[in-house]
Amino acid sequence: MRAVDIITKKRDGGQLTRQEIAFLIRGYTRGEVADYQMAALLMAIYLRGMSSEETIALTEEMLHSGEVVDFSDLGICVDKHSTGGVGDKTSLVVAPVVASAGVLVPMISGRALAHSGGTLDKLEAIPGFNINLSLDEFRATLKEVGAALIGQTEEIAPADKKLYGLRDVTATVGCRPLMAASIMSKKTAEGINGLVLDVKVGSGAFLKTEPEATSLAQVMMEIARGMNRRCVALITDMNQPLGRAVGNSIEVIEALETLKGHGPGDFNFLCRELAAEMLVLGRAADSVESGRAAFDEAISSGKALDKMRQIIRSQGGDPRVADDYDLLPRARHVRTICATTVGFVQAIDTEAVGRASMVLGAGRTTLDSPIDLGVGLIVKARVGDEVSAGGPLADIHYNDASRADEAASIIVQAYTIGPEPVEPPRLIHAVLR
Amino acid sequence: MRAVDIITKKRDGGQLTRQEIAFLIRGYTRGEVADYQMAALLMAIYLRGMSSEETIALTEEMLHSGEVVDFSDLGICVDKHSTGGVGDKTSLVVAPVVASAGVLVPMISGRALAHSGGTLDKLEAIPGFNINLSLDEFRATLKEVGAALIGQTEEIAPADKKLYGLRDVTATVGCRPLMAASIMSKKTAEGINGLVLDVKVGSGAFLKTEPEATSLAQVMMEIARGMNRRCVALITDMNQPLGRAVGNSIEVIEALETLKGHGPGDFNFLCRELAAEMLVLGRAADSVESGRAAFDEAISSGKALDKMRQIIRSQGGDPRVADDYDLLPRARHVRTICATTVGFVQAIDTEAVGRASMVLGAGRTTLDSPIDLGVGLIVKARVGDEVSAGGPLADIHYNDASRADEAASIIVQAYTIGPEPVEPPRLIHAVLR
Repeated sequence: MRAVDIITKKRDGGQLTRQEIAFLIRGYTRGEVADYQMAALLMAIYLRGMSSEETIALTEEMLHSGEVVDFSDLGICVDKHSTGGVGDKTSLVVAPVVASAGVLVPMISGRALAHSGGTLDKLEAIPGFNINLSLDEFRATLKEVGAALIGQTEEIAPADKKLYGLRDVTATVGCRPLMAASIMSKKTAEGINGLVLDVKVGSGAFLKTEPEATSLAQVMMEIARGMNRRCVALITDMNQPLGRAVGNSIEVIEALETLKGHGPGDFNFLCRELAAEMLVLGRAADSVESGRAAFDEAISSGKALDKMRQIIRSQGGDPRVADDYDLLPRARHVRTICATTVGFVQAIDTEAVGRASMVLGAGRTTLDSPIDLGVGLIVKARVGDEVSAGGPLADIHYNDASRADEAASIIVQAYTIGPEPVEPPRLIHAVLR
Repeated sequence: MRAVDIITKKRDGGQLTRQEIAFLIRGYTRGEVADYQMAALLMAIYLRGMSSEETIALTEEMLHSGEVVDFSDLGICVDKHSTGGVGDKTSLVVAPVVASAGVLVPMISGRALAHSGGTLDKLEAIPGFNINLSLDEFRATLKEVGAALIGQTEEIAPADKKLYGLRDVTATVGCRPLMAASIMSKKTAEGINGLVLDVKVGSGAFLKTEPEATSLAQVMMEIARGMNRRCVALITDMNQPLGRAVGNSIEVIEALETLKGHGPGDFNFLCRELAAEMLVLGRAADSVESGRAAFDEAISSGKALDKMRQIIRSQGGDPRVADDYDLLPRARHVRTICATTVGFVQAIDTEAVGRASMVLGAGRTTLDSPIDLGVGLIVKARVGDEVSAGGPLADIHYNDASRADEAASIIVQAYTIGPEPVEPPRLIHAVLR
């Protein structure tokens, strides 16, 4: 079997066999199939697609490219996974909330991918926070604290780890079968009993339409069922940034504010829904409604914020950041971007907003490019808001003026402003069980 | 500008600007754009295509990625280029013929690519033959001998050199704009006044249909015109291997036999047509007819064979190979593959024949895999031939029995044998001027 023949088959629209997928994934993991061959295959998959059988085979090969963790002796484990958006810092809220309610959350997250942010990069904005735990440390932290937020270790789905980085720099991120296999291989490897999927749809998501998002959710739920994991999928709106903050440090701050009960309404609402579903899957709530009440209690009592401090401390971070945001890396300058016309915000090209944040330095352009943790932006005008000429659209937090200029021009173009009032998009499009 | 955005644009079917193409080619040449990003782009170009403007911009950027040679002080220079086929060793005949008639032939050739052979690999079968001349040595050899056959130097179209190898292992060889830009950037860099293109079409070519081949020829002629080079294109048949030999050493032997006047009829015929066109472009013949006569004279007088000995000697090779084929690397074993049915050869899957040769070890599977110069095959039955059950289809020259088994099964499947007599395909489909 030769990689080039398998690439040729997919290039020409053929269906790959399990043997061919196994050959590629095992070879790629061992370094025998080169990055450039995998990149060509990924683009062929992007443009030619993959059947449901191919996707399940790909997931299983990626899962078994590494170790599969078992935490069943510690208790019920649940996790939440988002398909990626702009301003999505829900993990930083739901993990402490759910753990504070007694459900274990072993969470393996990813880095910024294309225009979307990554939980790991946000966590690394917290001074000292170590996302590189060994599997033994992962277990010990989970047992002690009830939650552990780490990056992919070398042992967990190493094939996915390599592919994830490669997709980011080869314009093959927004591809349903690749997304499903990536998410489900990682999540089924981390020893969870239940999984809440947050499938983003809209201008800032990798999937722009509801049928695409629903189809991705269905593929992932099919994989979960085949692997005996309980799974719920929420199709949620990404036609504007989630919350207000887009970046790394500034998203951590918004998450901490939310844990204190001062988060933006939309962001708090989504965290509440996701956490409620997690609590039901984790058998700590007998209905979504009582899960919501548990969320509210965890916030108002301060238990969730305390749990967040514990998580930070147990992973080597400085828990004082929860009370002193100046301990986080911050951008040196802030500039407000203003509207040039009066009217209502009709739409926001949210992918462009994510790109603006990348341009500032909050995301990466190649596998190993550094990230500027302090930069980003605060969205001031949301869909449906009325803006006056000269009224603020967003604040740009920046360190480099020329990058700020470029980001500003992207932001201005990302906003569509018109005379007609519009209704804000609803945040939850559907729940699949 | 970021590579990933340009890949995204092409992935979605957009047209790249000259600035974007320049950014990618310059970045790739300098190593700032990674192999994996270029591989993803190549696959996107394969599946989405490129306009004529994009192709010309790509050619010019590749040309100017390195030095552009000028031999105008030495005389008129012409070259021939084939788009690649199976058993195509015409360069080894036309270069000495045309040089012996007083026209300079500065020829920069390529290596085996996918299922097709490469002139450089064939030349390296000659003990001592050095295809790695510096540009100064290239000029000196051309001046002294009238022909020089080299590989791409670091100075000539370095972007093409990198891309050529990458396409081979990413299933992106048979893509018209990439082929046109590769060929024309290299050929216009080598200081030629005229170029004869041999565009292969058929089951063993990268382009399977005549409209595709004609369109490639037209793109290349358009590029040539824009760069003030005289250019003629022959569309020639690749529905069966050219000549009898497929491999490296055994193709060198067939070329030498042709220079002695004992070549297979089809192969000799094509060399004669190509050389005649080259002689006209080189102003050594005033018509194709007198070019053909010059070809016949160069062969019958022994001048072409002498010129080949000179070329070999001047590039460090052992000229005695011309008279003693045992000085070439040879396979240890020969096995005859026989037909299992009686009838006429209806068709030969010539790409499969090339693949069989690769499987034996005559081609390469990754950028740096070694080649077994001695192996290959000799085609015994051609399209239209009548075969008896048990009659020979091909001789396999091999060193590894398991590879021979695999090659044999490919060969048997490559032949379609049926009861109806069929006419052999005509060798020259069209001549474009």
